[in-house]
Amino acid sequence: MTKNTKVNAALLIIGNEILSGRTQDTNTTTLATWLNSIGVKVEEVRVVPDLEKIIVETLNHLRKNYNYVFTTGGIGPTHDDITAESVAKAFGLKYEINEEGYKILESYYKKGEFNKGRQKMIWMPENAKLILNPTSGAPGFYVENVFCLPGVPSILKSMLGGLKNKIVGGAPIISHTINLRTVESEIAKSLSKVQDENKDVEIGSYPFFQAGKLGVSIVIRSEDQSKIDNCNSQILKFVNEKKIEVVDR
Amino acid sequence: MTKNTKVNAALLIIGNEILSGRTQDTNTTTLATWLNSIGVKVEEVRVVPDLEKIIVETLNHLRKNYNYVFTTGGIGPTHDDITAESVAKAFGLKYEINEEGYKILESYYKKGEFNKGRQKMIWMPENAKLILNPTSGAPGFYVENVFCLPGVPSILKSMLGGLKNKIVGGAPIISHTINLRTVESEIAKSLSKVQDENKDVEIGSYPFFQAGKLGVSIVIRSEDQSKIDNCNSQILKFVNEKKIEVVDR
Repeated sequence: MTKNTKVNAALLIIGNEILSGRTQDTNTTTLATWLNSIGVKVEEVRVVPDLEKIIVETLNHLRKNYNYVFTTGGIGPTHDDITAESVAKAFGLKYEINEEGYKILESYYKKGEFNKGRQKMIWMPENAKLILNPTSGAPGFYVENVFCLPGVPSILKSMLGGLKNKIVGGAPIISHTINLRTVESEIAKSLSKVQDENKDVEIGSYPFFQAGKLGVSIVIRSEDQSKIDNCNSQILKFVNEKKIEVVDR
Repeated sequence: MTKNTKVNAALLIIGNEILSGRTQDTNTTTLATWLNSIGVKVEEVRVVPDLEKIIVETLNHLRKNYNYVFTTGGIGPTHDDITAESVAKAFGLKYEINEEGYKILESYYKKGEFNKGRQKMIWMPENAKLILNPTSGAPGFYVENVFCLPGVPSILKSMLGGLKNKIVGGAPIISHTINLRTVESEIAKSLSKVQDENKDVEIGSYPFFQAGKLGVSIVIRSEDQSKIDNCNSQILKFVNEKKIEVVDR
């Protein structure tokens, strides 16, 4: 039985360093892959600068339009870390010291090291719930459907395990890939026909170049394995008729 | 003399494969870095699925709010390549064969190879102007301030050279980085003071981990070298006072 509930999410990547090209965002791929695996489909990603007004407006739009919003970046101790305060403003909540977070960092740091700079990291929207950080102490947090994670990829990754029981996904999205030794234009018409006959399945076509040879990956995505199997058969049918080689990647 | 005109841009990354986590977007970094170098500041990035309604709506929002919009992806020959048709709809233009593009691909392919599938790649909004593709023939195009580029990173990169004279940038955005052997919390207060005294300069603080040691990169960005120099001096002043080591990266 397939769960029919569709659960979706948007990602809000916060940081001038992504927009300037200085830093390559990889958190989108990490979060999207993980969310897919627990049945949450990422339908939009926005990258915005470290500007409160823009973060507040964007967040208020996204949180009303998606089941979940995940933010990355801007929860450190410096002046350009304005995510927590912006989230408080977006929800109309007080921005204050989170007592539980305070205790965590107080015991995480050596005596005397939990200075004002570090204390900024546990200023959060009132009643924010914590997302524990097994790597570097400072927790993320969530308010209603908005989950705030750090920008440093290794720290973000280490926090996903603790998030799992806080997110209620739908049916996991299953993906099946067929790799062909061909070019897109050779299969475009046949593939389009399969898509037309299977409108509720997502069929993507992606050229690749491997060991000096061109190829095309066809990716079939759905929550329903039987629909994927059906598309797969239809695609392999025209692939055989056209004598196209199926390859490993 | 500094040109004072600010020129901005948004990027619209089109493709289910980015949202599913299958493909790591790198075009944002490529475009942002290049645009910065010609004085165009990327202020927003959106990643959207291969859905016409969403592409049309998003594009109509972005093109009215930014000097330039760059789209990536969705201009190949398959059914999921819907960027050109969506751009036509967004502008209320006919979607038709581009004669110049037709001639280019007709001479690019061997006789008999310029099939219907490949012809899809030169269906464009009426009067679209071409962006030449030195790698794989099929051109990108632009309509007014919207520039449509392919999703394959190597092909996109090869097309930027031909774009340069079509984009009028402002003063190039200069970036200066100071790498310190410290942690963010040690410098947060002093750095915040420098930012407060230099509100029109962008100062970012980014932790790094190199050869087993923590550090912080401070990035100063402005169109005005003298403002960068001024911030740099103020930062080095507190760095010296705190006896923090400046390091190479």
